[in-house]
Amino acid sequence: MQFHLNGFTPGDPEVCHGKAPAPLPQRVDVLIVGAGPTGLTLAAQLAAFPGITTCVVEQKHGPLLVGQADGIACRTMEMFQAFGFAERVAREACWVNETAFWRPDPAAPAHIARARVIQDVEDGLSEFPHVVLNQARVHDFYLDLMRHAATPVAPAYSRRLLDLVRDDGAGDHPLTARFEASDPRLPQGLEAVRARYVVGCDGARSAVRQALGRALVGDSANQAWGVMDVLAVTDFPDVRRKAVIQSASQGSMLIIPREGGYMVRLYIELDALAPDQRVAALQVTPDHLVAAARRILAPYSLDVKQVAWWSVYEIGQRLCARFDDRTDDDDAREPRIFIAGDACHTHSPKAGQGMNVSMQDAFNLGWKLAAVLMRRSPPSLLATYSAERRAVAGELLDFDRRFAALFSARPAGASGAGEVPAAFEDYFVQQGRFTAGTATRYPPALLVGPGTHQHLATGFTVGMRFHSAPVVRLADARPLQLGHVVRADGRWRLFSFAARGERGEPGSQLGELLAFLADAAASPLRRNTPAGADIDAVIEVLAVFQQPHRELTVTDLPGLLLPRKGRFGLVDYEKAYCPAIEAAADIFDLRGVDREQGCMVVVRPDQYVAHVLPLNGHAELAAFFARCLRPAA
Amino acid sequence: MQFHLNGFTPGDPEVCHGKAPAPLPQRVDVLIVGAGPTGLTLAAQLAAFPGITTCVVEQKHGPLLVGQADGIACRTMEMFQAFGFAERVAREACWVNETAFWRPDPAAPAHIARARVIQDVEDGLSEFPHVVLNQARVHDFYLDLMRHAATPVAPAYSRRLLDLVRDDGAGDHPLTARFEASDPRLPQGLEAVRARYVVGCDGARSAVRQALGRALVGDSANQAWGVMDVLAVTDFPDVRRKAVIQSASQGSMLIIPREGGYMVRLYIELDALAPDQRVAALQVTPDHLVAAARRILAPYSLDVKQVAWWSVYEIGQRLCARFDDRTDDDDAREPRIFIAGDACHTHSPKAGQGMNVSMQDAFNLGWKLAAVLMRRSPPSLLATYSAERRAVAGELLDFDRRFAALFSARPAGASGAGEVPAAFEDYFVQQGRFTAGTATRYPPALLVGPGTHQHLATGFTVGMRFHSAPVVRLADARPLQLGHVVRADGRWRLFSFAARGERGEPGSQLGELLAFLADAAASPLRRNTPAGADIDAVIEVLAVFQQPHRELTVTDLPGLLLPRKGRFGLVDYEKAYCPAIEAAADIFDLRGVDREQGCMVVVRPDQYVAHVLPLNGHAELAAFFARCLRPAA
Repeated sequence: MQFHLNGFTPGDPEVCHGKAPAPLPQRVDVLIVGAGPTGLTLAAQLAAFPGITTCVVEQKHGPLLVGQADGIACRTMEMFQAFGFAERVAREACWVNETAFWRPDPAAPAHIARARVIQDVEDGLSEFPHVVLNQARVHDFYLDLMRHAATPVAPAYSRRLLDLVRDDGAGDHPLTARFEASDPRLPQGLEAVRARYVVGCDGARSAVRQALGRALVGDSANQAWGVMDVLAVTDFPDVRRKAVIQSASQGSMLIIPREGGYMVRLYIELDALAPDQRVAALQVTPDHLVAAARRILAPYSLDVKQVAWWSVYEIGQRLCARFDDRTDDDDAREPRIFIAGDACHTHSPKAGQGMNVSMQDAFNLGWKLAAVLMRRSPPSLLATYSAERRAVAGELLDFDRRFAALFSARPAGASGAGEVPAAFEDYFVQQGRFTAGTATRYPPALLVGPGTHQHLATGFTVGMRFHSAPVVRLADARPLQLGHVVRADGRWRLFSFAARGERGEPGSQLGELLAFLADAAASPLRRNTPAGADIDAVIEVLAVFQQPHRELTVTDLPGLLLPRKGRFGLVDYEKAYCPAIEAAADIFDLRGVDREQGCMVVVRPDQYVAHVLPLNGHAELAAFFARCLRPAA
Repeated sequence: MQFHLNGFTPGDPEVCHGKAPAPLPQRVDVLIVGAGPTGLTLAAQLAAFPGITTCVVEQKHGPLLVGQADGIACRTMEMFQAFGFAERVAREACWVNETAFWRPDPAAPAHIARARVIQDVEDGLSEFPHVVLNQARVHDFYLDLMRHAATPVAPAYSRRLLDLVRDDGAGDHPLTARFEASDPRLPQGLEAVRARYVVGCDGARSAVRQALGRALVGDSANQAWGVMDVLAVTDFPDVRRKAVIQSASQGSMLIIPREGGYMVRLYIELDALAPDQRVAALQVTPDHLVAAARRILAPYSLDVKQVAWWSVYEIGQRLCARFDDRTDDDDAREPRIFIAGDACHTHSPKAGQGMNVSMQDAFNLGWKLAAVLMRRSPPSLLATYSAERRAVAGELLDFDRRFAALFSARPAGASGAGEVPAAFEDYFVQQGRFTAGTATRYPPALLVGPGTHQHLATGFTVGMRFHSAPVVRLADARPLQLGHVVRADGRWRLFSFAARGERGEPGSQLGELLAFLADAAASPLRRNTPAGADIDAVIEVLAVFQQPHRELTVTDLPGLLLPRKGRFGLVDYEKAYCPAIEAAADIFDLRGVDREQGCMVVVRPDQYVAHVLPLNGHAELAAFFARCLRPAA
C-alpha cells in the first residue's frame, strides 16, 4: 500500500466526523474520561458485552486525525487480533523489520557511518510483526468496532471534566462526574454523569488523577526533543529502515519509516533544558528541526518537501503511586476510580512504548470491570489492576530512563566511535522482548497461579501472555494460530494438552478432566456458567492433541469438545486442535509441553496465562476459579 | 439502532438500501448490464481509473443478500488480492482445506463409508487458500471498493434492458441501450443510455446476448439438483470438510461447509429429467431435499434446524459461439458489445467454478477496455477478450461435463464400491489445478508472447498467471509475496530477474536493460508513458536480485529502480526485491529462473505472464509493447 505521494492527508474518508453532539447520559456503568488509545481500548472491550453501558467523554472536539504515537508492538498486534482488526493494521501499516545503528565514522567523525543492522524482532517471538501506524488509524479501528458492537458506544466530544465525587452512600452508582461543554452546539451549563466506575484515560494532565489528589512523581524533564513527520528526499540509505543515529557532536536522531511508503518520522535531539525550563521556551520551529536533522545526517542530504505534523516535547519519567482510588493495599473499599495510560505513567516516546503499554493497561482493566459488572467475578478482581499494571509501568520507566540516557549520551573519544553507542545497541537488542511487549509477567496473586507446575509447559509461562503457536483445527483441518482462539470477549480459556496417545476417551487423563468439567458438582463450568447460557459462555474448554489430525475422528470427541449451543442446539466444532501439518516443530515442542503428562493451561480473558496445572489437577483448578469467579445464579 | 420495523431485511443495517433511485446517465464510456459478480468485477476495475465513466444497470431491486454461489478458488483470491480485499475474504470465509470422499460401505452397501481424504489444494499451488463465502459478501466488498474508487460507481437497480443498438455512424458513442424501469419511484417510460462499450453480465438469460442474436448452445439439461444452506445437527464426521458422497442407490450429495462455523451447504442429486422437462415440474420443496439428504447420508443422522436458503436447478453445459459482437475473427470492426460470465457459459455449480470463471472473464476484459479508453492501447486489444475467454469456457465445459457425469454415476457392482467413485476421486485430484483456477493458459497472440525463452523461467509459464513467491523488499527488509505487487490498476509490470551477482551496475545485463528502458528512444517507457505522468504509470519496472538483501545498498540502485514521483519528486522505494530470508528455496529456485542469465518476465495488468525474455532482449521487448501499446501523446 502506498499513499501520501502528493501530500499527507489524515483520516479514514469513510468516517463522518461532523455529527452534531448528543447530550451525555445521566447514568452509566462505566464512565471513561479520554478517547485516546487507552480510553478506546477500554470502551471497545466493554462495548462487546450486552447490558454494560459505557460513556466515553473527550475534551477534544473530535477524533484525532494526525500525529502522535505510531509504534505498534508485537504484543499489541496480538491484542488487536483479539479485537479482530490485526489484519487491517498489518495491511496498512509500515513493518519495522530491521533497525540500523549509525555512529560517527571513525575515519571522519563529522560524518555518520552505519555500524550495525539487526533484525528488529527475534524469530518466533510473536506471529505478528512490529509495525508503525498513525495512532489516529488505531482510533478509527476501535471506533469502527464500537459502532458495530453488542452495545454500540461513540465518544462524546467537547467536554472537560470539572469534578468527580465518590459517595458510597449514594447507591449503586456512587460516582458523580460533572462536565463543562466547549461546543456551542451543546446545551450550555454543566452535565452530570453518575457511574458505577470511572476510568481516567485522560493523559498526562489527567483531571481524573487530579480529582484523586494524586500526582505523577519522578524525574524532572531535562532534555528536549522534536518530532516531525516529513515527506522528504534523501540519499541516506536507511530511510525505510528504523535507524538510530548518534552523531559526534550534532546530537542524536531516530528515523521511523511510516506507512504509505513515502513518509518518515524523525525524532531529533534538541538542547538540554535548564531546571524548570519548559520546552516551549526554546521556541522551536519546524525549520529548526529540519536544520538539526540535516546536521545530524551529514554527509547525507535531506530535502524536506512537506512537514505533515510536528511537535516538541521534554523527556521525564513519572509515575503515579497507585492506579486506583484506594489509599493503600489494605484499603477494604472496592476501587471505583481508576487511571490508565499517560494519566499514571509518562516517559520518552522514542522506544515506541507509551501507546502500547497504555492500551495494555486498558486491556487488563476492561475484562475485569465487565466480569464484576456482569456479576461473574467478585469486586476483589478490580484491586489486581493497579497491582499488576503499576509494576509494569515501573519496569517501563526503568527501561526508558536507561534507554533515554544511552540515546542522548555523546560518543566517547576523539574518534567519536566510543563505547556508548555500542552499549546502546547491546541494550536495544537485549531489551527486544521488553519493547515488543512480550516480557510482561504478572506475579502470582488472585488471577495468577503459582508456578508449581510450570515444568509441564515451560513455554507457557504463568503470568505471561499466552504465546501462540500454529495448529490445525481437527474438524476442518484449517491451519491457524492457537492464540487467535482467545478473542476479546471476556471469556476464560482452558487449553487442555492431551498426554501422548490420548483421545479424550474415558479413563484417559484428558477424558477424566473433561468428565469432571462436564459433570462434577465442583466443576467451574457447572458452578460458574449462568443457567441458560452456552456451556462455554464463561470458560471455554479446548483440547490440543498430539496425533496428526487425520488420525482422529471429530465425532469421537467427548461431548464437552462438541458442545451444543444456541437456540437450535447446534454443534460447535472449534474446540479441538492438532499439531500443524509438516511443521518442523509442533506446539508441544515449541512450548515445551510435557508429552507424557500433558497439562492444562488456563488463559485469562486478556490472553495472560493464569495457571498451568496437571490434567488431573481438578481440585486445584476448581480452587483457582472459586477465587476469581462467583457461583452463577 | 433500530431496524426490521417493516419486516426482516438481512445485510448490513448501516447501509441504506432504500435510497431513491437516480436516473440513468445519458452517456457513458462503459455500460455494464448486470450487477452480479461478473458485472461488479468489471465495474470495480473500471472505477479505478479517473476519467472513465461506467454505469452498471441491474434488473433486481437491490444488492444480493443471500444464497447463490459461494466457492472462491485460489486464483480468485489472487485477483481479490489485486483488488485489495483478499484478507477480508480470508478472515470471514470458510477455508476448504480437505475433501473427503464417501462411497457405499463394501460391508453394508446401504450405508456410506469414508473412502479417502485428500488435501484440497496441493502445496505451493497458490499463497491463498480455497475458501467458501456467500456471493453476497463478495458483492459487498466490490461495492465498497467502487464507492471509494477514483471514479465512484454505484449500480442502478430496477431496470430491464429492452433493446440495444449499434450504429457506427453515430459518433464515438455508437451504442444505444434502452431500459424500462420497474420501480414506481422512477420516472416511468424508457431511459436511453448511449455508450462506447456495452458488456452483458446479465446471466444465463442475458438480454445483451439476445440483442446480439446469439444463443447458448450445448447439452440439454437432464439432471435436476437441489441446493440448500442449512443449520443442522448431524453425527456425520465430515460436516466441516468438503465431502463428496456417493450412495449405492440414493444418489449423490456434496457437502460444503460454510463460513461462520455452523452453516453447511448441501448439493443433492434429484431425479433425472425427461427431455424438455424443466426442474420446476418436479415441484421440489425443502422437505423433499432434506428427506433426500437423509437417505443419502444413512447411517448418519441429519436434523435440519433451519433452511437459510434453497433452490433447485438443472444441469446443462452451454456455451456461446463468441463473447463479442463481431461476426467472426476476420470481422474488421472493433468489438463494441461483449458478454461475460453466465451470459456466455453455463454449467453445473458443484465444482465451484461458475462465479470464479465469470469474474476472471471480467478481469480479463476490464483492463483492456480501460487501456483502449485511455488511448494507451489500440482497439485491437479488445478482440483478444473473446478469443482468450471462450477457450477457457470451452475447457470448463469439458471439465464440467465429465465431472457431472462421474458425480452422478452409480457405483458399480453389488458391493456398491465399484470403479466409478474411484475414477471420480482420481479425476478430482487430477483436476485440482483446473478447479483452483490456476491452469488457465492463454495461447500466444497479441498479448502473449511465444514461449521461445521459456527456459529462462520455467515456473513463470507464458500465458499463465504470474505465480507468486516470497521475497524481501530491499529498502525495508519487508517480507512479502512478489505477486502482490501486481494490483488491479491497469499497469503492466516488467520483473527483471538479475543474473548471478548483478546489482544493476553499468555494464551488467540488468544495468544495460535499465539504461535502455530509461534512455533509449525505443524504450517502451519513453514511447508509452504520457508526458507528465510518473515513469511507472503505464509499465512498472521492478528488479529481483539474487543476493541477500543486506548485501545490497538501496541507494546504489540505478535510478529507474528509485524513481522520483509525484508533485514533490519523492523516491519510490518499492521496486527492488531480494530472496526471502531463510527460505528453504528462494524465488529463483521456486520458479526455475536461470541464475546465470536472469530474465525479464512481463506481466499483464490481469496478472498473466505476457512474455519471458532474456535481459538483453531489448528489441523483442520493444516490439512486444509496440503491438499492444500506443505511443503516448
